Amino acid sequence: MTETTPDASHPFDRATQVTAAGNRWRGATSDDYFAFVGPFGGVTAATLLRAVMVQPECLGDPLSVTVNLCAPVTDGPFDLDVRLIRATRSTQHWLVELSQDGGEVAAFATAVFAARRPSWSHQPAVYPGAPPFEEVPIHPNAGIANWVRQYQFRFVEGHPRYGQTPLDVPASPFSKMWLGDATPRRVDFLSLLSFSDTFFARIFHARGTIVPIGTVSMTTVFHADAADLAAENTTVVLGVADSRIFHKSFGDQTGELWAPSGRLLATTSQIVYFKA
Amino acid sequence: MTETTPDASHPFDRATQVTAAGNRWRGATSDDYFAFVGPFGGVTAATLLRAVMVQPECLGDPLSVTVNLCAPVTDGPFDLDVRLIRATRSTQHWLVELSQDGGEVAAFATAVFAARRPSWSHQPAVYPGAPPFEEVPIHPNAGIANWVRQYQFRFVEGHPRYGQTPLDVPASPFSKMWLGDATPRRVDFLSLLSFSDTFFARIFHARGTIVPIGTVSMTTVFHADAADLAAENTTVVLGVADSRIFHKSFGDQTGELWAPSGRLLATTSQIVYFKA
Repeated sequence: MTETTPDASHPFDRATQVTAAGNRWRGATSDDYFAFVGPFGGVTAATLLRAVMVQPECLGDPLSVTVNLCAPVTDGPFDLDVRLIRATRSTQHWLVELSQDGGEVAAFATAVFAARRPSWSHQPAVYPGAPPFEEVPIHPNAGIANWVRQYQFRFVEGHPRYGQTPLDVPASPFSKMWLGDATPRRVDFLSLLSFSDTFFARIFHARGTIVPIGTVSMTTVFHADAADLAAENTTVVLGVADSRIFHKSFGDQTGELWAPSGRLLATTSQIVYFKA
Repeated sequence: MTETTPDASHPFDRATQVTAAGNRWRGATSDDYFAFVGPFGGVTAATLLRAVMVQPECLGDPLSVTVNLCAPVTDGPFDLDVRLIRATRSTQHWLVELSQDGGEVAAFATAVFAARRPSWSHQPAVYPGAPPFEEVPIHPNAGIANWVRQYQFRFVEGHPRYGQTPLDVPASPFSKMWLGDATPRRVDFLSLLSFSDTFFARIFHARGTIVPIGTVSMTTVFHADAADLAAENTTVVLGVADSRIFHKSFGDQTGELWAPSGRLLATTSQIVYFKA
C-alpha cells in the first residue's frame, strides 16, 4: 500500500500523518490546512481514512467513507481509536473516532473497504468536459484561509463571486472546476476524500455572499481501485458540485471527481449547516 | 415523537418495532419484509433509526443516516446496541449496531440528529413531475420477494423490463415512480429511510436482467423536519433513481424522494455490490 506511506515532503502527507501510540493512534492538526475554526474538514477526513489504511489487517481498497464532523477540532494533537466493526470474506467495515485530551469525540468516520473483482463495467454518467487544465486561469487565493492555498482551483463554470450582501434572486449553486494540490501530488484515495470537501459551500454561490457554514456529514464513494488510480496517474481532477435544497439551517451538496481521461473516480455528498 | 410510536396495525411498524432489554434493545425480522437472503435492507435501516428515536435523550429530528449492511441478517430476533457518540448544543451523533446470538455485527448505522432552526430556504432542484398517482398503473408484484408486496410502485419512466439475458447495449438506469406503502401510511422519517432502499437495483435496468446484488452502504439525508412532514401529510412520494457507474463489482445509486406538493423530502445515495 504505497498510497498510504506518508511522504514527508508534501504538506498533505505531513498533515494527515498518523503514528501508533499503544493501542491507539495519534495525529496532529497542521497550520498548513487551518480553516476558520479548526482544521479543514477534508484533511481531518483523510487523516481518519489513513488511520484505517495503516492497520495491518486492512484489506482491499476504500469503497465508501462517511465522515461526521461533530465539533471543531482544536489546534494540536489528537487521538484516534480504530475499530474493525465487521469483516467478511471480501469487505471490511471500520470505525475511527477522533478525540482530544481525553475529551469527547470531535469527529469520526465509518469506512467500507472491499477487494474489488473484475466485472462488467459501464459508466452511464457523462464526462462534464472542460478546456484543458493548463488553459484555465488559476483562481486567486490570497487573503483567505490557509487550507485554500494548499489547493489549486481553476473554475470553468460557477466562479465564486461573493459580494457583501445577498443576491436578490438566488444564483445557481453549480460549479465546475479543475482541482489539484498546490504542490502537485498524484491523486490517491486520501486526496480524493480531501478534494470532496474542497468545494466552496454551495450556499455562497446561491446567495452570492459568504455566511457561516460547517460540514456536518460527508459521504464519498470511490469508483476506482488502487490499480485504476495508478493507471490514471493524474495530479488533477475535474470537479463538479451542486446543491438541491437549503432549508431550516441545512443544505445539501453533491459532487463528482473526474480524471482528465473521462473516468469517474469518486462521487460525494454532504449535509452542511448554515446560518442565513 | 408520535412518529416513532409503533402502530401495531401496520406491518411496517410491526417490522421495525424495538423493545428495551436491559441496556440493549431488541428487534426481530419480519416475514412481511423478507427479501432473498434476509430482511429487506430498508426495513433494517428503519429499525436502526427507530432504535435511536426511542432513546429518551434523543433530541431534534434525523438529518442524515448512513446504514452499512455488512452481512445477511438471519431470520429471528436481534440485539441493538445504541450509543450517543457526541452531542452538541444543536446536534447529536449516534451509532447503532445490530448483532444476533451474541455474534458479530451484521448491520450498523450512524445518524445525525439536529434541532433545525428557521432560515433562508431555497430549493434549486426542480420537481421531476409526473401524472397524478391515481392515474399511473400499479406495477404488478406477484411472484417476487415478500417485501416488494408491502409497497406500491407506479412507474412513470424506466419501467422494470427484465429479460433472461443481458441487453446488447446497456439501457438507461434512470427510473421515476410513485412509491407508497401497500397499506397506506403517512410518510415519516422511518418510511422515507426505507423508501430509500426500495428502488430496484439500477444494474437490473442497465443490463435488462436480474443479477445478484446487495446494498453495502446507504446514506439518506432528510430535507424536512417533523413539522414539515406533518404539514405534507402524504402517504406517497415521487421517487427518482439513477446510477453513474458500475465498475469492478460495485455500482452507485442516487435517489430523490419528493412530496406530491413539489417539496424535496429526502435524497439518498448507496453503493451496491453486484455480480455480473
